[in-house]
Amino acid sequence: MGQTKIKDIYFASSNSNKYLEIEPILRQYGIVSHFAKMSLQEIQSESVQQIAEAKCTNAFDYLQKPVIIEDDGFYLSSLKGFPGQYSSFVYKTLGNQGILKLMQNRADRKAYFLSVIAYGDGHTFKIFSGKTRGMISKLATDGGWGFDPIFVPENTIKTYGELSLLNRKSFYSHRHKSIEKFSKWYIKKRLRYRNR
Amino acid sequence: MGQTKIKDIYFASSNSNKYLEIEPILRQYGIVSHFAKMSLQEIQSESVQQIAEAKCTNAFDYLQKPVIIEDDGFYLSSLKGFPGQYSSFVYKTLGNQGILKLMQNRADRKAYFLSVIAYGDGHTFKIFSGKTRGMISKLATDGGWGFDPIFVPENTIKTYGELSLLNRKSFYSHRHKSIEKFSKWYIKKRLRYRNR
Repeated sequence: MGQTKIKDIYFASSNSNKYLEIEPILRQYGIVSHFAKMSLQEIQSESVQQIAEAKCTNAFDYLQKPVIIEDDGFYLSSLKGFPGQYSSFVYKTLGNQGILKLMQNRADRKAYFLSVIAYGDGHTFKIFSGKTRGMISKLATDGGWGFDPIFVPENTIKTYGELSLLNRKSFYSHRHKSIEKFSKWYIKKRLRYRNR
Repeated sequence: MGQTKIKDIYFASSNSNKYLEIEPILRQYGIVSHFAKMSLQEIQSESVQQIAEAKCTNAFDYLQKPVIIEDDGFYLSSLKGFPGQYSSFVYKTLGNQGILKLMQNRADRKAYFLSVIAYGDGHTFKIFSGKTRGMISKLATDGGWGFDPIFVPENTIKTYGELSLLNRKSFYSHRHKSIEKFSKWYIKKRLRYRNR
């Protein structure tokens, strides 16, 4: 059953919240996934693509199975792209209150989230990205995790955190966009594999 | 003249300011150094030692000569160690004004600089560190580079920036401490080498 094997992929991350967000989308496309909880070596780079590529190689070397990893960044226009690739570290140290403090009295509140999915199976390596533009709110709301409570995506007045509570976050999610791109590509790849 | 070869070392960095600070100290110990301007791949890690080790290996692989690299971090007590290993990125994006904003109305203004020197020659690998404790000033002063204008080391009332102008920074410098430790070790190593 070589056909079923290609359907099963691993999602490698230290963050189970990410998997909880990604798994239902993969399932909608009939892709069976497994969560591989692991801490992946990250390089310091201003390119989220470069970081994702290094992480994916690292995960595949370890698992030796088709694997995807996700990496995202949070970029604030008036802070020259801060916190960018270092979002996890900045969230752990400064938190949302730190970001709101840095944004006090700033007219330009534009920000975007960028999600990059990297897929690797030892033969093929491919990257998919999703971006959601929005604004930094004045106060942190409830709900969500990470910077969700302070990010208001375009075309809504609610933060990611509030949208998450209402189960509508996926409609605006940068992560949803990248994982959908991956899923569509992966389904086609599987069909090509079957028709060989 | 194998003896002279071991005296010559390379200092690999993308930052020539660091070399200007380090070179006179090496010279005092009779160590001849050369500046190798290069951009070294950095890993993301909360351990400055781990980052330094990876950078030094990277530099030696490229140069194939005895090389030292320096890596430093800036740790603020009330910001849970922020900006830590990501000082360069944080300086580029938020700058000193960003740090001062984050420190507004905070009673705990303790901070320290940590410098790590890693030496590698293909046979020996060794790490030396220097730490300087101090406080975050209320305003940024003139002089120095990076976070120098907002850091007041212990036992003085001047910032690193002001001390630099007066040519007394070396007395308090974390970088001075690590490079002195290295130099003393390196001189002994050279003597052992000569006496073989």
